[in-house]
Amino acid sequence: MNERVNLKIKDLEIFVINVLKKCGLNEEDAKITCDVLLLADKRGIESHGVARLKRYVNGIKQGTIKINNNIKIIKETPVSLVIDGEGGMGQLIAYKTMKQCIEKAKKNLICFATIRNSNHYGIAGYYTLMALKEDMIGISLTNSAPLVVPTFAKDAVIGTNPISIGIPANKEKPFLLDMATSTVPRGKLEVHARLREPISKLWATDENGIETNDASKVLTNLIDRRGGGLSPLGGSSELTGGHKGYGLGALVDIFSGVFSSGAVGTDVYVKKGEPSGVCHFLGVINPEAFSGIDVIKKNMDYYIKMLKDSEKCSSQNRIYVAGEKEFESEKRNVDKLNIQDKVFSTLNLIGKEFNLELKIT
Amino acid sequence: MNERVNLKIKDLEIFVINVLKKCGLNEEDAKITCDVLLLADKRGIESHGVARLKRYVNGIKQGTIKINNNIKIIKETPVSLVIDGEGGMGQLIAYKTMKQCIEKAKKNLICFATIRNSNHYGIAGYYTLMALKEDMIGISLTNSAPLVVPTFAKDAVIGTNPISIGIPANKEKPFLLDMATSTVPRGKLEVHARLREPISKLWATDENGIETNDASKVLTNLIDRRGGGLSPLGGSSELTGGHKGYGLGALVDIFSGVFSSGAVGTDVYVKKGEPSGVCHFLGVINPEAFSGIDVIKKNMDYYIKMLKDSEKCSSQNRIYVAGEKEFESEKRNVDKLNIQDKVFSTLNLIGKEFNLELKIT
Repeated sequence: MNERVNLKIKDLEIFVINVLKKCGLNEEDAKITCDVLLLADKRGIESHGVARLKRYVNGIKQGTIKINNNIKIIKETPVSLVIDGEGGMGQLIAYKTMKQCIEKAKKNLICFATIRNSNHYGIAGYYTLMALKEDMIGISLTNSAPLVVPTFAKDAVIGTNPISIGIPANKEKPFLLDMATSTVPRGKLEVHARLREPISKLWATDENGIETNDASKVLTNLIDRRGGGLSPLGGSSELTGGHKGYGLGALVDIFSGVFSSGAVGTDVYVKKGEPSGVCHFLGVINPEAFSGIDVIKKNMDYYIKMLKDSEKCSSQNRIYVAGEKEFESEKRNVDKLNIQDKVFSTLNLIGKEFNLELKIT
Repeated sequence: MNERVNLKIKDLEIFVINVLKKCGLNEEDAKITCDVLLLADKRGIESHGVARLKRYVNGIKQGTIKINNNIKIIKETPVSLVIDGEGGMGQLIAYKTMKQCIEKAKKNLICFATIRNSNHYGIAGYYTLMALKEDMIGISLTNSAPLVVPTFAKDAVIGTNPISIGIPANKEKPFLLDMATSTVPRGKLEVHARLREPISKLWATDENGIETNDASKVLTNLIDRRGGGLSPLGGSSELTGGHKGYGLGALVDIFSGVFSSGAVGTDVYVKKGEPSGVCHFLGVINPEAFSGIDVIKKNMDYYIKMLKDSEKCSSQNRIYVAGEKEFESEKRNVDKLNIQDKVFSTLNLIGKEFNLELKIT
């Protein structure tokens, strides 16, 4: 039921790039998009990896994702950009915008970009990592399809709206937060529904807005728009701090959609077959704005070590910092990827369509 | 046990200003500090209001809070400041820094300040509100005494490290997030301990790092540094998303203490009777960096209305947005404040010491 196959990353890379080229992307754009997808798999975030290729291919075919991928600058100041993605590939819009933010932050210390009319951009952390590679502080936020129920509401109004912020370190791996503002992403409910396992009451609410253990019901309700959905970080109640997760999710909508005059809340993915309207917010801060890169890296090593060296609770022997598990996963997956059989089958179907082959090692 | 008294705000104001002047603050500084304290009470955040006056008075007496309240600029760029508070009053350091951030953001669109060697600055939202009054986007973060246990840890290593971000709106009240990154603040445990009521298992862990219902035990453990403490937003386990709250709390430490080369984690309030080393991060973004103030305000009205007008869950008849309850509390408390008997007694004790009187209306 949950079998997996091994693939050479090189093979998978060639395959994905060729699929995207057959869809009409040029060589460079296909390579960027492929890199975003594969990095998710390498970092163990399978829900955002090649498992999504089919969605992107379908989007391009249906015209909800355009392949004219030049970012249109609506407004530019020394420290900011307002971008219209014009319905292009989210990965390319975000990548190209982040490149500009990095250049501007090198010169002017800070650059923030708010982006409207884009599409799903993969893992938020990809763009934060771009900043980290340049010894910069990176910020990446995006709104998404309404799946999360605000505190005291019945219906899903806001997305799982992730927040990613990354800070460079020296000997330690960078601190890289990349978290949905819901307690869990939809994928977790899908896994539990498949295994018929009850979910935590903090994860979701039913069609009356009441906590539930039943993952299948929540997923069906979401598809049929009957009410209920994922709970914000902290759950559905104020008692457990759910209003805070709701506040953070709304904040992501504001930075992405309100600041860019794009889509927010239920206006994102409002109608099947139409452009999604997804909005992002990207930012780069040059450490020279503060104590400077060398000092900040040294301070980060000290702080990360303080966290990791502190005493463990009785059931654990290790304390992690944000991004650490993903960096270790990336290090393990240098040559090969172990992907779900189900995902491999989907890739093969895409391959057949485009007359491309993908081998198991 | 939980009786309350009514006070005229005008009387309370004169009293607090006079106490602070007797402590050595000049007229202007006393007025600013008083305003930060009283606004907390007006907004219903009693834990950060005049109930804290005694702590500040004691701090000044013991020399852990200096009354030389000029902010020392360590580094300045067109878009940033690094400030050394030199152990002064947190409220004054933050107020004066925020003033400068607003001026710089008016000119250069963005200004971020990281501040070391400060002290407890009251409600984080006060400084965000300063930006909102100027039609600017405000950010206010601070680290604090280590009370929160990182995921998989045994001991409290990081503070309740609040995040406040405010966005102006037009007809609607501004969106004003002001949240501790722990599930609840320590004050909530104190209330439950007093009433001998069990707490939610998501709030805290015991001396072995295991979830507990016993508020008294957690508080005693924290005082004796025996292990355990408050849980991050999402609780102590990854299952309920606690690693996300932990990540957010660490982020606040990084922006405040790492960027300014100040104190972080267990180095904050490291020793009784010594300077606290509290660090802040303040930021102002001029809406003209993005779609402009008029458009953003209009977009905010639309978004806030979308959230509030969405369907309610079965047990509720109203959906709130961040800050709304506090704005309504502020509106109610224009002339009078209803404060706890216990707090009134403490104020009277301070009054006796300085030969100042505080009347009940």
